[in-house]
Amino acid sequence: MQFELSTEMMDGLKQAIEEQNATYIKDGLYDLYAPDIALIINQLNIEQAAYIYELLDDEVAPNVLLELDDDTREKLLATFSSKQIAEQIDNMDSDDAADVISELPEDIQEEVLSHIEDIEQASDIAELINYDEGTAGSLMAKELVSVYAFETVSQCIEEIRKQADNVDVMYAVYVVDNNEKLIGMLSLKKLIISHPLARIEEIYEPDVQSVKTTTPSEEVSEFMQKYDLVVLPVVDQLGRLVGRITIDDVVDVMRETADENMPRMSGISDDVDTNDKLWRLSRARIPWLLVGMCGGIVGSRIIGTYEESIKIHPEMAYFIPLIGAMGGNVGVQSSAIIVQGLANNSLLGDNITPKLIKELGVGLINGLICAGLIWGYAFLIEDWRLAATVSSALLTVILCASFLGTFVPLTMNRFKINPALATGPFVTTLNDIIGSTIYFLMGRMLYSVF
Amino acid sequence: MQFELSTEMMDGLKQAIEEQNATYIKDGLYDLYAPDIALIINQLNIEQAAYIYELLDDEVAPNVLLELDDDTREKLLATFSSKQIAEQIDNMDSDDAADVISELPEDIQEEVLSHIEDIEQASDIAELINYDEGTAGSLMAKELVSVYAFETVSQCIEEIRKQADNVDVMYAVYVVDNNEKLIGMLSLKKLIISHPLARIEEIYEPDVQSVKTTTPSEEVSEFMQKYDLVVLPVVDQLGRLVGRITIDDVVDVMRETADENMPRMSGISDDVDTNDKLWRLSRARIPWLLVGMCGGIVGSRIIGTYEESIKIHPEMAYFIPLIGAMGGNVGVQSSAIIVQGLANNSLLGDNITPKLIKELGVGLINGLICAGLIWGYAFLIEDWRLAATVSSALLTVILCASFLGTFVPLTMNRFKINPALATGPFVTTLNDIIGSTIYFLMGRMLYSVF
Repeated sequence: MQFELSTEMMDGLKQAIEEQNATYIKDGLYDLYAPDIALIINQLNIEQAAYIYELLDDEVAPNVLLELDDDTREKLLATFSSKQIAEQIDNMDSDDAADVISELPEDIQEEVLSHIEDIEQASDIAELINYDEGTAGSLMAKELVSVYAFETVSQCIEEIRKQADNVDVMYAVYVVDNNEKLIGMLSLKKLIISHPLARIEEIYEPDVQSVKTTTPSEEVSEFMQKYDLVVLPVVDQLGRLVGRITIDDVVDVMRETADENMPRMSGISDDVDTNDKLWRLSRARIPWLLVGMCGGIVGSRIIGTYEESIKIHPEMAYFIPLIGAMGGNVGVQSSAIIVQGLANNSLLGDNITPKLIKELGVGLINGLICAGLIWGYAFLIEDWRLAATVSSALLTVILCASFLGTFVPLTMNRFKINPALATGPFVTTLNDIIGSTIYFLMGRMLYSVF
Repeated sequence: MQFELSTEMMDGLKQAIEEQNATYIKDGLYDLYAPDIALIINQLNIEQAAYIYELLDDEVAPNVLLELDDDTREKLLATFSSKQIAEQIDNMDSDDAADVISELPEDIQEEVLSHIEDIEQASDIAELINYDEGTAGSLMAKELVSVYAFETVSQCIEEIRKQADNVDVMYAVYVVDNNEKLIGMLSLKKLIISHPLARIEEIYEPDVQSVKTTTPSEEVSEFMQKYDLVVLPVVDQLGRLVGRITIDDVVDVMRETADENMPRMSGISDDVDTNDKLWRLSRARIPWLLVGMCGGIVGSRIIGTYEESIKIHPEMAYFIPLIGAMGGNVGVQSSAIIVQGLANNSLLGDNITPKLIKELGVGLINGLICAGLIWGYAFLIEDWRLAATVSSALLTVILCASFLGTFVPLTMNRFKINPALATGPFVTTLNDIIGSTIYFLMGRMLYSVF
């Protein structure tokens, strides 16, 4: 069902590009949708990409441009003149056109805008690129059909007919009052089944949800998900209808948000993917590795203070990795649950005590199981004092890790810091240090008393 | 903009429930949308929930039911008779109704179906609950408008008018041939702007994408995202139109998929959230903790073989946690990037060698930075032999972890095992063991030679 990019296909295309075999390429791409063609172009070098792009249908080309990787698009557009760029974005939806333009260098932006033939499109784009990234304004498109409440169904249909060329996909018509303030909506279905002479004010749905241009993208995304909306009108500070956001734009926001948390929790500080350059990948990871190093050094100083104990009881050292690893594991488990709950909005209310108690309950159960097992093992293999040290330290470390894994992300969230960002690194490093301390403290106590 | 649940509001409602103050409750809930009312009911005990649910408008109640947490819905429905359940789902979309019914015990399912008044709805539901969970069939709804290619625009509008009550939201009309095979679609916009006597076959769009009832949900979700689709028709094995999937159902699938990976990578084996019971939370986490324990025990045996070295050079023990932690950190970073790339489909082709080389490159850069720093530290604080041991072991461990963190998830993925499932636990434990081994091996070598 879904298009799969094969090595044979890529090889065939590359050869055809070399031989300038335009017919072969056009035939090969004829059946494909824009996202699939973009997938192919992403794999090519810039000369090959430009050659293929040149051969695309005028209708398909702008859609392919939109689906390209940011890197590839930037390089491809750099080979175009301002006029050529203007031609490509002239027929795009205004939000997509604004996205493409805002990626260009500032001096070129104006040039491109001046070359756009459709004056309305140019002014829409000029408006849209002014909204801050990460707000509803930057997500919205200007293409929409609005009618006055006093108009009739047939006037409304006439309006739709006029705008049909501009608005690609249409789900609803918006109803505004004389001051352009959004007062309701009308589904196309309702429009179709209503009498042509019926007045809009008699049939429209006054209960319409909207967001402001300044509403943050994440809130828009949550809002549309929660209320299962496919399209959402955007109003300015005075309540006037200025644009609309469709679900496909929000799906991208959702994916970005979901994609952000895992790398953050894994100690990767920047948005990188496997296709990025080596030094960028290194730079994104080194900060947290350095945090881990500092933690390790603090740990080494702590263990260092027990030098004499280790000399007499070297078996104490055997279980250092186990204590550290288990603290880390439990801490990550606890914080993952909390980070996810916060991302999902499934954690309600701001009373964190019950959550802490529950996590400590889970920690106690699992801690007792693990401590019991390790006690049995160490008792059989080593001696009872080591067994008592390891098992009691393990239980304490698991309880500590449960507490920190819950408390740290909740607290960070309260102070408006992304809990995923530092939870992984912070919790793991802290647990390592606390683990070593507890372990040697208990060991020295037990060995010195008995 | 968005509804916020306040403690005052909850307290007010609870008191009103106690006093059976129906007017207060109705007034309080009047302005709210179904998802918000569901949010409130989720926080109540089952008697309170049932009381409030009883007071809801007939139109709002089914939507609230759909938005409730699975647990709450199950408990609430258990207080209903089969006839009452049937009344609630009679007006739901068929896919939602099927979801609710399939959660009920088998014997009750038939009873409920027999009480549904709308025969067509009952037979649609009976069909839908037969599709396997996780397939397009289980996601789709039966509500759609289809027309024959030989019909006219005005016949088509007549059909829409007839079905208007059943189909809540409509984006397009599907075109089928005489054998009910899907051959194209027609947007409502196109329908509105076309002449009433135009034949469908003259104006429809023959290029329509569809999936089969057996297509896996994740594929449906990827497909709709990739091609920016709002609605997708579903056909049976013979190509006959049987239903349609809307983007809001797929958004849920997306969220579930995104939500799955983080807990898996954090060593949580089951779908749990903070609201689950204590023993369920414990049980979901203990398997990986036991894996970690086994790894720790293996580690202890390895260190145990170096007992003599530790007695003479107890400072060797100081850096055990650092080596282990750094191996873990690097491994998790590498595997997170790969798991995310696999989830995103941004990893193309099946040649893993270039990815391994790149990861090893990143590992080498970061390993050299970390090893250099720790060498400086250990040289200043301890002695050159320990510095050489720690730094060379650290570099080796980081390289190993980069390799494993890349190789393990890619290999698991090739064998169709969810790479997130065992990557976290597996990679971390393996790194711990390898880390200790390398560290002590190098230490003994250096100390025995010099």
